[in-house]
Amino acid sequence: MRDLMALTAQPQVISLAGGLPDMTVFPPEVMAKVTAQIAAEASARALQYGPTEGLDDVREAIAQVMAAEGMTAIEPDDILVTTGGQQVIDLVCRTLVDPGDVVIAEAPTYPGAVPCFGSFEADVVQIAMDADGMRVDELEETLDRLEREGRRPKFVYTIPTFHNPAGVTMSLPRRRRLVEVARERELLVLEDNPYGLLRFEGEPLPTLYSLDGGEFVIYLGTFSKILSAGIRVGWAVAPGPVFQKLNIGKQAADLCSSSLSQLFVATYFRSGLWAEQLERFKEVYRRRRDVMLGALEEFLGPHAEWTRPQGGLFLWATLPDYIDTTDLLARALESDVAFVPGRAAYLDGRGGSSMRLNFSGVAEDDIREGVRRIGRVVREQVELYGTLTGSAAAPAERDRPDPAPQESMADVVPLPRRAGGDRARGTR
Amino acid sequence: MRDLMALTAQPQVISLAGGLPDMTVFPPEVMAKVTAQIAAEASARALQYGPTEGLDDVREAIAQVMAAEGMTAIEPDDILVTTGGQQVIDLVCRTLVDPGDVVIAEAPTYPGAVPCFGSFEADVVQIAMDADGMRVDELEETLDRLEREGRRPKFVYTIPTFHNPAGVTMSLPRRRRLVEVARERELLVLEDNPYGLLRFEGEPLPTLYSLDGGEFVIYLGTFSKILSAGIRVGWAVAPGPVFQKLNIGKQAADLCSSSLSQLFVATYFRSGLWAEQLERFKEVYRRRRDVMLGALEEFLGPHAEWTRPQGGLFLWATLPDYIDTTDLLARALESDVAFVPGRAAYLDGRGGSSMRLNFSGVAEDDIREGVRRIGRVVREQVELYGTLTGSAAAPAERDRPDPAPQESMADVVPLPRRAGGDRARGTR
Repeated sequence: MRDLMALTAQPQVISLAGGLPDMTVFPPEVMAKVTAQIAAEASARALQYGPTEGLDDVREAIAQVMAAEGMTAIEPDDILVTTGGQQVIDLVCRTLVDPGDVVIAEAPTYPGAVPCFGSFEADVVQIAMDADGMRVDELEETLDRLEREGRRPKFVYTIPTFHNPAGVTMSLPRRRRLVEVARERELLVLEDNPYGLLRFEGEPLPTLYSLDGGEFVIYLGTFSKILSAGIRVGWAVAPGPVFQKLNIGKQAADLCSSSLSQLFVATYFRSGLWAEQLERFKEVYRRRRDVMLGALEEFLGPHAEWTRPQGGLFLWATLPDYIDTTDLLARALESDVAFVPGRAAYLDGRGGSSMRLNFSGVAEDDIREGVRRIGRVVREQVELYGTLTGSAAAPAERDRPDPAPQESMADVVPLPRRAGGDRARGTR
Repeated sequence: MRDLMALTAQPQVISLAGGLPDMTVFPPEVMAKVTAQIAAEASARALQYGPTEGLDDVREAIAQVMAAEGMTAIEPDDILVTTGGQQVIDLVCRTLVDPGDVVIAEAPTYPGAVPCFGSFEADVVQIAMDADGMRVDELEETLDRLEREGRRPKFVYTIPTFHNPAGVTMSLPRRRRLVEVARERELLVLEDNPYGLLRFEGEPLPTLYSLDGGEFVIYLGTFSKILSAGIRVGWAVAPGPVFQKLNIGKQAADLCSSSLSQLFVATYFRSGLWAEQLERFKEVYRRRRDVMLGALEEFLGPHAEWTRPQGGLFLWATLPDYIDTTDLLARALESDVAFVPGRAAYLDGRGGSSMRLNFSGVAEDDIREGVRRIGRVVREQVELYGTLTGSAAAPAERDRPDPAPQESMADVVPLPRRAGGDRARGTR
């Protein structure tokens, strides 16, 4: 991933590989006003260390954001401010995982979590997903199997809403069942929810945290996608004993998060502009998603299937089995376009025919052109395969996705077989 | 330490326990100017993710700072920007230490490093210090012993200049010998240098990094004490293979450091004001150190000895053996004054009669009053001991420190016996 990001930094490359918000959507004059206010009212405070758990005023802003997602009973004291959402994943691993411990994740999972799991030598077991998110029935089978083996997972890591990279959202029945399973088995769940407020269509669903009441669910939030990624402010809400451990881990990790960044959040939220800014992000990303879906239909139509996210930043496309997207990326880069190969989202080498495509950080014209270039290299591979094998170019066994964006959860395109089919089993 | 910091946050408490720079010394109008420039010229960039290794312009500012400490051959590409200096210690542990591995540290060592070492289950062996810093002869004996036991330390952690908490500075011969030892034994050294530029008197000494040329020395720098602690920007310079590992670890830990903070540094450094600001900090801290030394003489004179730092933020005071500073702190807090008990700087329970006192973050009057209060509770303990034992109140076996601040390294007051005496041996 790191090398990929370096390659895609070249200006001629259209990168659908990133996970960037578009920060040009944030008005520079608001930035000027907020920072001027900090300098006038709180210069020394912005430049000074703060408490490890975060400044009180940013914790109040966080409580506002959580209330906007239906979590109304959060006290500022329950919130641990972190250096981005990434630090929450890292601190949870650091706090809970000893080498060889089982961690449950989705298949595919967030590529940025993979090095955290690896860093603490977790044995990651990945659970298949379909259009309704994580297959909780498969989770239960896996938990039964692990129990027979005398192994107790430290936690279940999930992104229920607008999944990165899969682009799907966990249905309400699955959410309810997952929370029940957690309670029945006294199993911690880490709910990673960076994108929940970026819903373009459909009705919001309750978070796992609100269904559980915070007993077994550790909640991860971040300002990265609703305000700014560059300020590095995220947060965790965790059951008391876990909260204390995370806080101690955070102090060892970086003492405290940037006070300047925290005051940026707090001051901005006092301006009351954030809801309006959120609409701006959603409008831009929704249009870009639509452009990407249209371009996929136009340029990859017969050769791929893909998910149709109702929000967030990403979708997941799967090519015929005989195309390896890691190899394909090398050819794509020759055509100055990039994506994240599916294998980055698995710990066991699966995902080889899939790719993650980002639509939030790229202008509409570039999205169309990028997908066109990917379509061209895919067609070359399909034709080469056809020539070599004498078979038809289009993978007849696959259903074509419905071309029109859908409004309801039920119509989300199923994840490709390979991601949603057989039992996921992680490797250390 | 965390609980202590919470107690000392109460406004009536004079806290000599912190490690805070005084950010009121930084002009708010400069803060306003710098942030206005960022908003006008680089708003979207400040709010966007940056590369894991840091923004190029802040790496150039860092190269300037290192040049000011005599390290002129640093390329911006050699620099890894981190979320404060703390993150460097954490990443080095994370990258190099497996449970049970030996790490060498000074006795006493930086209290904030202790939870990092603990978090990665390092077996910390602490090497005694005296007025010339770490006893490198004792280090060599310890390395010999460990070699006989078949154990190879992962690295040596040292703060050679204005040590936190000891307040002493490693002499040039010791520096040269330490670097020789590292090279002879192919041993990594982590040089933690947050305070080097805060020299009030005496001639600057070369860093270990410059003596070594960066082959075995990992360098840790930070803007926390020369610009702002609240922006959380530090850095590491490390030999190539270590650099790559640290960078990968950093990506897992928090993806990248705040772009807003990094642009704050870069923009500020382009203004050319930093050298002048550094003088301002030094002037304020030098006066505060002098007030603290005077107050110690006045209020603790016969009952304690203390180091006489030529720069930095801290000094280290040691009371008679029969006074336990952890117990004393409870009494001190009743008198609304706080310090860091010496045990926080050891992993093996030593340091029980010592305390760390900070002079950078407290106004002159408060320093004097704080030391007066500490003096009062100490006298009570001394008198109680005298009553109970019938012995003389003053610890006759100890040399009294020279009352006048000294200019030369040779005159630095020796560390108390208990810190500089017997073989340091860490516990896991």
